[in-house]
Amino acid sequence: MPESDPARTWFKCTDAERAAFEAGIKLGALYHQFVGAAVNAASVDSLEEAMAASLRTQPFVEGAQVRLDRKSLRQGPRPYDESSLTGEMMDVSVQVRYGESAVVGRLRYVPELGYPLMSLEAV
Amino acid sequence: MPESDPARTWFKCTDAERAAFEAGIKLGALYHQFVGAAVNAASVDSLEEAMAASLRTQPFVEGAQVRLDRKSLRQGPRPYDESSLTGEMMDVSVQVRYGESAVVGRLRYVPELGYPLMSLEAV
Amino acid sequence: MPESDPARTWFKCTDAERAAFEAGIKLGALYHQFVGAAVNAASVDSLEEAMAASLRTQPFVEGAQVRLDRKSLRQGPRPYDESSLTGEMMDVSVQVRYGESAVVGRLRYVPELGYPLMSLEAV
Amino acid sequence: MPESDPARTWFKCTDAERAAFEAGIKLGALYHQFVGAAVNAASVDSLEEAMAASLRTQPFVEGAQVRLDRKSLRQGPRPYDESSLTGEMMDVSVQVRYGESAVVGRLRYVPELGYPLMSLEAV
Repeated sequence: MPESDPARTWFKCTDAERAAFEAGIKLGALYHQFVGAAVNAASVDSLEEAMAASLRTQPFVEGAQVRLDRKSLRQGPRPYDESSLTGEMMDVSVQVRYGESAVVGRLRYVPELGYPLMSLEAV
Repeated sequence: MPESDPARTWFKCTDAERAAFEAGIKLGALYHQFVGAAVNAASVDSLEEAMAASLRTQPFVEGAQVRLDRKSLRQGPRPYDESSLTGEMMDVSVQVRYGESAVVGRLRYVPELGYPLMSLEAV
Repeated sequence: MPESDPARTWFKCTDAERAAFEAGIKLGALYHQFVGAAVNAASVDSLEEAMAASLRTQPFVEGAQVRLDRKSLRQGPRPYDESSLTGEMMDVSVQVRYGESAVVGRLRYVPELGYPLMSLEAV
Repeated sequence: MPESDPARTWFKCTDAERAAFEAGIKLGALYHQFVGAAVNAASVDSLEEAMAASLRTQPFVEGAQVRLDRKSLRQGPRPYDESSLTGEMMDVSVQVRYGESAVVGRLRYVPELGYPLMSLEAV
């Protein structure tokens, strides 16, 4: 990858630091792109797929999985029975490789912390 | 719809004005929710479907169609060959009904104006 | 305004419906543009001002007020003590005029409904 | 910082990799939070300040500077004379520290590449 990376001369870091940086970009971008989107039981599958596909288009991503929590979705026949996507509903994993370095970034709600955490599960 | 609308007492307007207001909300929301999303030839179908499904979950929407322009998509095997979704790439139609009033909202690039326009095509 | 509106030929509606549509666009856009933004006690003033200024740049807006609820903000010296902007924290009013028609759009949390409502308070 | 970081047990990486990851999150989030926002000459100062303030609220950020390019702004007295914020208009620098490791993340348009690049300028 580094040899095919047109941007490599703009970086001053190791391959592992670059992979970690790229994983952070992907998770920060995904959260802020999609949080607040209207979603209900009929649309959650397509939103999940679009989020994963969006991750997979990005530089140095080798794989991505997105799970949205269905239990939080409002459902019903009346107006305003739809929900907005929140960070608490997201469970995202993204595999990023740069050169010899592969990392796994994760975004998920951590009950002990009380908020959605973006973390590096493996470098 | 009005009789099943839990929010109707908060409005002071005709059904046609309400339908127009709701159409505006849907288009303004869609644009600002999804603009900037990473997209390429492999992910454009799922993004299009998620956008249309997101519209269809919302109050008073009877139908929605989303077309994203494939010609503007960058493609290729190198990092950074993905694109970001712009307003110029979107062609969106949303049908909204409130009581006896039905409207069609549209978002699309208008060459004569030089920008993406949100308009009411029929009331 | 109608005579200076370069887009008027794309609309089929009354001035009041147009004003209602434009108010909907502004509120839908504002919500989805800014929801999820990182905010704390030190940054809330600037976010509030930026949101109001963003509304005031838009077509047919005569005035806009934004109040963000400070009580919901996390505060503290530890990492992750910041909050994300939610719809529940927003109280927004926007005055829109098109021709002879003036409307007031509002976005605020309505306890009786249990969610942030976008409404037309006056036409 | 590591000793005051409530999330540190969820990470498996060096301090430098963590700092790089956090810098990536901040830049990815900023871009996707604010891209597409309505902006003109009257509102650009407040948007710039809100973006910088939003960065400074976030974990492990020691400083942040945001410059938005005024030359790209549409100006004028007619409706639709406002612009939308694009990545090409942003020049952002964010200083992140985790433990002994400090990094500088940067987001700016790079003419040689033809797109806005997020990079690590120093680790």
